[in-house]
Amino acid sequence: MPTLSNKKRNIKEYITGYVDGEGCFSVSFSRRDKFIIGWETKPSFSVSQNHYRAEILFLIQKTLNCGFMRRDYSDQTLKYEVRRLNDLLHKVIPFFDKYPLISGRKKDFKIFKQICLLMIRNKHLELNGFKRIVSLAFQMNESGRRHYTKKDIMDIAQKKI
Amino acid sequence: MPTLSNKKRNIKEYITGYVDGEGCFSVSFSRRDKFIIGWETKPSFSVSQNHYRAEILFLIQKTLNCGFMRRDYSDQTLKYEVRRLNDLLHKVIPFFDKYPLISGRKKDFKIFKQICLLMIRNKHLELNGFKRIVSLAFQMNESGRRHYTKKDIMDIAQKKI
Repeated sequence: MPTLSNKKRNIKEYITGYVDGEGCFSVSFSRRDKFIIGWETKPSFSVSQNHYRAEILFLIQKTLNCGFMRRDYSDQTLKYEVRRLNDLLHKVIPFFDKYPLISGRKKDFKIFKQICLLMIRNKHLELNGFKRIVSLAFQMNESGRRHYTKKDIMDIAQKKI
Repeated sequence: MPTLSNKKRNIKEYITGYVDGEGCFSVSFSRRDKFIIGWETKPSFSVSQNHYRAEILFLIQKTLNCGFMRRDYSDQTLKYEVRRLNDLLHKVIPFFDKYPLISGRKKDFKIFKQICLLMIRNKHLELNGFKRIVSLAFQMNESGRRHYTKKDIMDIAQKKI
């Protein structure tokens, strides 16, 4: 079969495939004493790669037109990450709405989208909304290493309010 | 953005993206005393996944129309693998010729293809051809864990002939 010219290629589908294998949608929580709720809610879309295949991360960054690169010197990887809620809602989520993930990761994406939509309505800043977000986040398969249990997070928020 | 209907999706590009992240082209060598050259040359295309995302492996198998699944009970993964030289040459390689990998893995694919083309001409069964194949295989970044060094393999082949 002849090689497809770059013009005829569908790089967006390629990216969905790549992200379905290597991407991560996560929502983490950091202790912030100065925050009313006691916690910062941090959604993140990321793709990590060793330097050997770093060009894909730049291709994803260019295609999604947002996010930044971070080097992890400890394990020689490069990480592409989007943390800005506006970029997540207006660039990342619409992309994967149009070119949906196929693997079990699509369940994580669905929850991630729900959380981002709650956050744009500032629901993470009040107790009930925050509890709902924490419950959703703990249903995700891959949400980074958790430093706190669901109960810890809920208890601290409850006491703060 | 509205979701693309399945009909409009380009699953082949998706698969290339997925394989660029998670796939492996490897050529390994097993000791075979009864073989003239003393070694069996084993090219393999594989994709491993935990069960959580196993559906992608079945999608790849269906699309490439070859290969088999193997369970690895030790680490709860499922592995899709193509080992038959004819399937590699007539199904796997033409697919990635048409929808090329983009990452550094494309270098491995190029070498892998060279080796398969040498094997179909039975070059792995004679000393010079075999040496060339071993040299090529050791230029690949990901070729599985090596049980033997390049020198070990060459020395044993040399003595056998």
